[in-house]
Amino acid sequence: MGKGEDTKQRILEQTAPLLNRHGYLSTPLSEIMEATGMQKGGIYNHFSSKEDLALQALDYAVQQVAQRFTRALQENENATDRLLAVISVLRVYATDHPFPGGCPLLNSAIESDDAHPALREKSRQAMDRMRDMFSRIVAKGIAEGDFRSQIHPDTVATIFVASFEGAVMLSKLYRDPVHLQRVVDHLTEYVNRELKR
Amino acid sequence: MGKGEDTKQRILEQTAPLLNRHGYLSTPLSEIMEATGMQKGGIYNHFSSKEDLALQALDYAVQQVAQRFTRALQENENATDRLLAVISVLRVYATDHPFPGGCPLLNSAIESDDAHPALREKSRQAMDRMRDMFSRIVAKGIAEGDFRSQIHPDTVATIFVASFEGAVMLSKLYRDPVHLQRVVDHLTEYVNRELKR
Repeated sequence: MGKGEDTKQRILEQTAPLLNRHGYLSTPLSEIMEATGMQKGGIYNHFSSKEDLALQALDYAVQQVAQRFTRALQENENATDRLLAVISVLRVYATDHPFPGGCPLLNSAIESDDAHPALREKSRQAMDRMRDMFSRIVAKGIAEGDFRSQIHPDTVATIFVASFEGAVMLSKLYRDPVHLQRVVDHLTEYVNRELKR
Repeated sequence: MGKGEDTKQRILEQTAPLLNRHGYLSTPLSEIMEATGMQKGGIYNHFSSKEDLALQALDYAVQQVAQRFTRALQENENATDRLLAVISVLRVYATDHPFPGGCPLLNSAIESDDAHPALREKSRQAMDRMRDMFSRIVAKGIAEGDFRSQIHPDTVATIFVASFEGAVMLSKLYRDPVHLQRVVDHLTEYVNRELKR
């Protein structure tokens, strides 16, 4: 990595946690300058606009979170084990945050859905990947005869992502992990009761 | 209502839908002036600060949404019927919005949780009332022998609110009601399979 790339990477590392907490687009440039210790011109040497920085910071934040899921999946082969491994990543999400400010997908979705088309598009693409992770595990479980064949993988993905993101929202709002724990218990029961053959 | 109260009410009606879409605190004053057709001084005759306007606009938006639930509850006596009536309000939430910009509780929670203590407190209070609505219905169902006695009302409230708010987020992000429909179907099955005796 050249020096320019180093600096760019450092800006992303320093701003992504800030933007995930205070808004990808609504954080004032003054806060970004303070977090990086750089002037406007220095920042814009590496990013074409404030929006460009916001989109790349979201990519960076999503990558940090995605690593946890990737590791959990690598360690498990069987579909049920993979789904339970993902659930165990979700279980600690409230107390052992993979990224400051909670789920970047949730934050960017809410910030962008009525207001910022480019951020919404980026947020949709990342959400697609998360839903896809669940759909693929469920489809694998059906193919291998672990899960009931009547199950619709995309429906299960919606139920997982919606419940989990809503629980992150509640646990962050109340600063109380109990909401996430309750939902994760509910999802675990759902796997055992409704998905498994 | 005096003329001052009329004007204040009109400002809330005109700004709440804007703030719910573009952010309760992150919407620039220029957009608020445009939406109301008023100058800064005129607006601040009725509100002590931009934050005061944001908090009252959130109250206004929450009231508009709460009316739907209140009506659904008034028409039903029995706990199962009350819960199914609330679910039917949730079912049309994506296609027949009670308020422009989606759920004000979700939007204000995400905007405020890491950044704005006063807005977070207001958002928590409104979320308490929503969770309480579910807890009370479930407790009534247990007391009347409709629901299983082992059920924990606050846990059911968390599961309902988390799943529903996550589904609103997904349906808004994708502009596709399917996510809300899937989650509402899941919640309906959950009532029949896990709560009912």
